[in-house]
Amino acid sequence: MLQLHSQLLPPLSQVQVLQLTETMAKDMTLLWGSGSPPCWRIMIVLEEKNLQGYNQKLLSFEKMEHKSKEVMDMNPRGQLPSFKHKNYVLNDSYAACMYLESQFSQGNKLIPDCPAEQALMYQRMFECPDFHQKMATVIYYNWKVPEAERHDSAVKRNREALTAEIKLWEGYLEKASGPFVAGKNFSLADVMFFPSVAYLYRFGFCEARYPKLAAYYNSLKDRPSIKATWPPTWLESPQGQDLLKGI
Amino acid sequence: MLQLHSQLLPPLSQVQVLQLTETMAKDMTLLWGSGSPPCWRIMIVLEEKNLQGYNQKLLSFEKMEHKSKEVMDMNPRGQLPSFKHKNYVLNDSYAACMYLESQFSQGNKLIPDCPAEQALMYQRMFECPDFHQKMATVIYYNWKVPEAERHDSAVKRNREALTAEIKLWEGYLEKASGPFVAGKNFSLADVMFFPSVAYLYRFGFCEARYPKLAAYYNSLKDRPSIKATWPPTWLESPQGQDLLKGI
Repeated sequence: MLQLHSQLLPPLSQVQVLQLTETMAKDMTLLWGSGSPPCWRIMIVLEEKNLQGYNQKLLSFEKMEHKSKEVMDMNPRGQLPSFKHKNYVLNDSYAACMYLESQFSQGNKLIPDCPAEQALMYQRMFECPDFHQKMATVIYYNWKVPEAERHDSAVKRNREALTAEIKLWEGYLEKASGPFVAGKNFSLADVMFFPSVAYLYRFGFCEARYPKLAAYYNSLKDRPSIKATWPPTWLESPQGQDLLKGI
Repeated sequence: MLQLHSQLLPPLSQVQVLQLTETMAKDMTLLWGSGSPPCWRIMIVLEEKNLQGYNQKLLSFEKMEHKSKEVMDMNPRGQLPSFKHKNYVLNDSYAACMYLESQFSQGNKLIPDCPAEQALMYQRMFECPDFHQKMATVIYYNWKVPEAERHDSAVKRNREALTAEIKLWEGYLEKASGPFVAGKNFSLADVMFFPSVAYLYRFGFCEARYPKLAAYYNSLKDRPSIKATWPPTWLESPQGQDLLKGI
């Protein structure tokens, strides 16, 4: 898993070598749920930064364990992920990922230095919530909207909004200068984007309709940091749902 | 507007002095709408970083100018802000603010170095979309939801969700170690939070009910970067709407 950046580096001191090896991150704790894209993002970054051996606990959304006292004590929103380093709480996945990238220089660099690449990386990274939100609105409609408030017209509008969003990203991938969502290098933009893309396919999205998105998914799903953190419930029952069929 | 950080600094070189002065940011363009919190965030950061003289154009949401060709060419989502530096497009306000803070060391530092402060800063910064979204859901309900799909039960639930969110932030401010939302220093967390707080009050939110939030609002509204970028339509007609009365 150890990768050096592709630029020429000066000889490393003992301290630097130590920084580049895996770190036992015993001062970190992650409470997480299987299949949750925000949880998955943090786990990918921990892998990319070679932060191993952190304390972790897999909780069940179905059993409402995200509303347990253990979670609420750390996260007043009662959500997973709940994450901390030492006593610094970073429950939001973007917050945790930005913090980890900022504080740990070891492992893979996830924010490019080059201004043009960095600008595109930030732009794509912060567009991901639009994508994720539109997907979640479709998938969780019946779960979130009480029966008496449901309307076919809203379902149709939500599906159209998701379709437009997916077309936008298909276009981004068509124009990308490399295999990743912000170009030549794996970055925080992929950390944010990939779990939502995997979610699309888990919920029955058709690979054939958007070839660039499918190629992106198929090329990244075997990346070591992603493979190592693949949702265990998805491995146990590889067949997902078909809520996104026809999108 | 020029402020040095409060730590002891070594003598400055000519180059450093130049970096600390105002920069005519003629290679930046901002298309914006008055009163839009995302637009306002970018304008506050530009002020804090002493980036003056950028190209800007105030557009009208009412006249649907955010769907004009000029905007769509820069921003396929047809939204304001639309922002670029050179030919790097950064339309998302978080992306633009992170990029500006990363690329320009001049002016005020908006992300603290201290790990504990940085962790809290990122956590609060990335919780702001929850706050903003819940507020927007209440304010724009009639605008976004077609008449046939509106329900009093949804209105009630949305207002309760906003109330719970506001209580959470009132609690954060109570426990804060300084006058800012992430403690002792003005940071990107305030850049994200303040415009939404100002929006609350613009839409009739009562100052008396949440004293910490009111104190925060009243202390920050005269900060030079905020005062200089106050929405011109709010200055022209100081009386806002009362959609949030009773929250």
